[in-house]
Formats: sequence, structure tokens, C-alpha cells
Amino acid sequence: MRDLKTITLDDARRVIAAAEHRAEAIGSPSNVAVVDVGGSLVAHIRMDDAQLGSIEHSIDKAFTSAFYRAATVDLAPDTRPDGQFWGMALSNHGRVLVFAGGVPLTDRDGTIVGAVGVSGGTQHQDATVADAAASALRTIDA
Amino acid sequence: MRDLKTITLDDARRVIAAAEHRAEAIGSPSNVAVVDVGGSLVAHIRMDDAQLGSIEHSIDKAFTSAFYRAATVDLAPDTRPDGQFWGMALSNHGRVLVFAGGVPLTDRDGTIVGAVGVSGGTQHQDATVADAAASALRTIDA
Amino acid sequence: MRDLKTITLDDARRVIAAAEHRAEAIGSPSNVAVVDVGGSLVAHIRMDDAQLGSIEHSIDKAFTSAFYRAATVDLAPDTRPDGQFWGMALSNHGRVLVFAGGVPLTDRDGTIVGAVGVSGGTQHQDATVADAAASALRTIDA
Amino acid sequence: MRDLKTITLDDARRVIAAAEHRAEAIGSPSNVAVVDVGGSLVAHIRMDDAQLGSIEHSIDKAFTSAFYRAATVDLAPDTRPDGQFWGMALSNHGRVLVFAGGVPLTDRDGTIVGAVGVSGGTQHQDATVADAAASALRTIDA
Repeated sequence: MRDLKTITLDDARRVIAAAEHRAEAIGSPSNVAVVDVGGSLVAHIRMDDAQLGSIEHSIDKAFTSAFYRAATVDLAPDTRPDGQFWGMALSNHGRVLVFAGGVPLTDRDGTIVGAVGVSGGTQHQDATVADAAASALRTIDA
Repeated sequence: MRDLKTITLDDARRVIAAAEHRAEAIGSPSNVAVVDVGGSLVAHIRMDDAQLGSIEHSIDKAFTSAFYRAATVDLAPDTRPDGQFWGMALSNHGRVLVFAGGVPLTDRDGTIVGAVGVSGGTQHQDATVADAAASALRTIDA
Repeated sequence: MRDLKTITLDDARRVIAAAEHRAEAIGSPSNVAVVDVGGSLVAHIRMDDAQLGSIEHSIDKAFTSAFYRAATVDLAPDTRPDGQFWGMALSNHGRVLVFAGGVPLTDRDGTIVGAVGVSGGTQHQDATVADAAASALRTIDA
Repeated sequence: MRDLKTITLDDARRVIAAAEHRAEAIGSPSNVAVVDVGGSLVAHIRMDDAQLGSIEHSIDKAFTSAFYRAATVDLAPDTRPDGQFWGMALSNHGRVLVFAGGVPLTDRDGTIVGAVGVSGGTQHQDATVADAAASALRTIDA
């Protein structure tokens, strides 16, 4: 047997707080979702002016990032029609999303312990907010 | 045109805090989801020891309660095989859940402004937590 | 080859007008959907205070009634766990609904030319509104 | 709490009437769907010669436009394989459509209060009809 290191709800709240802080700073009302190491939702928030269409995006980005242990934006090239994983974006019952805003959460040693998904802005805005969120976790003693 | 009154993220957080408080008091680790007046997710949390199978339950209960303006437990009798709404639990693409834990959120005048869904315990525990959550909102000045 | 007699959009609007008239008279804000002889949607309306959860119900009831050439309420007994069609409510990709409110639309000779689905009230209210809607069509010269 | 401004059924009917008027003028039998600010259907019509495959398109375009606060045609470039939102058209359980014909509905101040979706013709025809529909709403005193 073995231990899976994963985030707690407290961790998820710190990640979300960091995301909100950055989203407000750059004026990009966002949905933010945090999943555990198994890809299951731990927490989600929709900021008051974030678009409804981004609710599922945030959850799907976090899921995708945890399931493939990668930033969602890094999956885009391989999943295009000419890429080696063409069709992947249709897999897993439509829960895979391959554009910017999903980022693995790691502890200070680089071990993946979950993922965060941010959606509501441009790809640059979503990535910026997600990176801020992920950074917050790495500064926590755990 | 007309105005629809709905909850903010701040409201949702108060509802969730009240739910967590009660869930801890009765020892029932829960998922808690809050949706707006249109049934769209505003916030969700999974307490650390809550079961994974209740994530969607909490969201679906909140959705059901907002979409049918009723406590989910009150929908159960009518949706049983001998009830007037037999089959309803299969409608809306599987998002309807008719067991205890979903409750409309109302303002102090009784206007429905969203819903909360709680899942993870027995029907009695889930209903107790959901009622505590909904009560918290009614005490807010709005 | 042969001709399929089916309703027009004008017919559907008369059916809906009759439904609204009755729904207002009995104080049951409703969703009303009309499908053609092939079960495809011709028109839908949601009255201002009708619940969101009934949008799909109205469309599904009309679809069910056209596809099975029966009032939806008459399908309930056979589709219960002890009925001869147990499981039918799960068929056709979840579009079958077997509680009151779906009624075939017929011309004056009794030929089925479409169906109407009403949802939002009790089974008695929905059936009353649907029957008024269907009656309106039979009085039209066609 | 906060107020969300949204359309009524009367508003939706004016939008649909304007769409039909334009669709007849340009000879493009159409499906027209109107959703509220939360993306839920308020009304739909299928003109007598409109194709069946466009029923869902009209509803999905309206949904997409409300959920992403944008004309559907403006989403196309970003959602192509080389766009920043590649894969978005597969999200939200297949309800996202990114070709012309979905337009937000706004009041005279520019506040989004719903959306209209038109489908049945070329992208130019659908966009023309949708724009006529949306313009009708902006001339209403509200």
C-alpha cells in the first residue's frame, strides 16, 4: 500500500483566495475550481461577474490538469487535428478541456497533489490567475 | 423586462459556513453546493472526509431545489412509482435528485433567490445541515 | 408515397394561446410545448412565473405523446416497476416522460397531427391545461 | 443579494416577431429561440419550412450567446484548432455552438438580459435575422 498526498479543503481555500486576489487585480471575473489528486472536486467559486459558461470550464480544466498531470495549455498542440493526441478533447465523457487555465498543484517538492482550473477571461488572463493560485500552495508548509 | 433577485458569492459563502458549522456539530462530513436563482453553481465545498459520490449529489440537489422551487425531500413522494410525477427523477438529463438535502434559499420576504444542496450523510443529517444553511441566509440584511 | 398531416406554426400558436388562457384562469403558470406529427418541436413558451424545471418537461411530454400516440398520463401504469413497459421511461435518450400533461393533437376526424406538452402545475392542472390546448385545435377548420 | 435584469415572455415574443419578419423578407425559414439572462429557454418557434436539424441549433446558439455574453460568430475564430479556446465547442455537454446566429439581447443601456438564437439559413442569413431580432428589443421602453 501507499500514501497519496493530496490537498485539504483548507488548502483549496488558500488556492482560491490567491486566484480571486489576482483575478480582481487584473479585472478578470473568474470561476475557480480545485480538485484533489484523484481529480475530484474539492471546492469551486464563481465570482459575481464571471460568465456562466465558465463554470464547467473551470471544473473541467482542473480535472484535465489532474488527470494528465499537465497544464491544460500544454495539451493543446497534441490534441489538434494534426497532433498525436487528436480526439483526446472528446474523451472522458467530455470532461477534457485543453485551453489555458488548468494547472497542477504541487507541494514544495514538486509532487502533484491536485489541480486548479480558472476560466472567465482570455487565455492569458486565465493562465495568470491559475499560476498565482498554484504558487500560493507551494508557499504553504505542508 | 423584470428583475430577478439572486444571491452573491458572499451570500453563498455565508450559507456554506453555516452548513459546515452544523455538519461538524453533528459529525457528518458533507459536500455543500450553492446555486443562484437560475440554478447555476455559485460555490461548492467538499469537507475533508466527505465521500466522493456526494459531490454531484450536492450540486444536483441544489439544482433540483432551484429548478422546482421545493425542498428535494418534498419531491420524493410524488416521484415514486405510484406518485403523480413518476419518472421525474429521470428528467433534465439526470440532474434531478429527489432525496433530502436540497432546500431553496429565500430572502427575508420569502422570495427564492437560489438553493443549497447538502450530501454526505443520512437523509436526516443532510436535511439538518441544509436547513441550517438556508436559515443563515434569511438573517442577512439585503 | 403518402401525406403526413401535421400542424403548422399557426396551429401551434392557437394551441399555445388556448393553453395560456386556461393556465391563467386556473392560476398555474406553465411551460407549453407543441411538436409536429414527427415529434419535433414547433413552438414553446414559458409563462413568466413558471418554474425552470418544467421547460424540458413540457418538451418531453409533447415528444412522448407524439411518439407513443397517447396521453402521457395513460403511459404511467404500464411503465411502473410492475408494469409491462417497465423501463420505458429510461428509453429514447431520456426524452420519455410519463406523467400528466402530454396530449396528442388531432384534427376533427381524430387523426393525430402532433402533440402538446404542459408542465408547471399539479398533474390535474397540467392535464386541464393540455386538454384545453388540444380542444382548441379540434375546433379549427383544417 | 443583487438584482439580475431579464426578459419577459412578452419581450421574447417581440424578439421572435422581428426575427420572423426579417426571415420572411429574406426568404430564410428559420428556427428562433430566446433564452433569459440565465440561459434558460423562454420561447421558441420553428417556421413552417425550416429544417428540423436547426431546432437544437437555435436553442444552443441562444444558450451559448447568453452563457458567453457574445455573438456566437465571434467565438468561432478562438475555438478553431489554432485558437486560444480550441475545444470549447465540445464543452458544456454539447450545448455550445459557435457559428453565426446567436446574439445577446441587451436593454437600451447595453445590459445583457438574455439572448436569441436563429438557425436555418446560411451564416449570413442567420446573423441578419438574429440582428434584426435583437434590435427589436432595444427599442422597447423598459
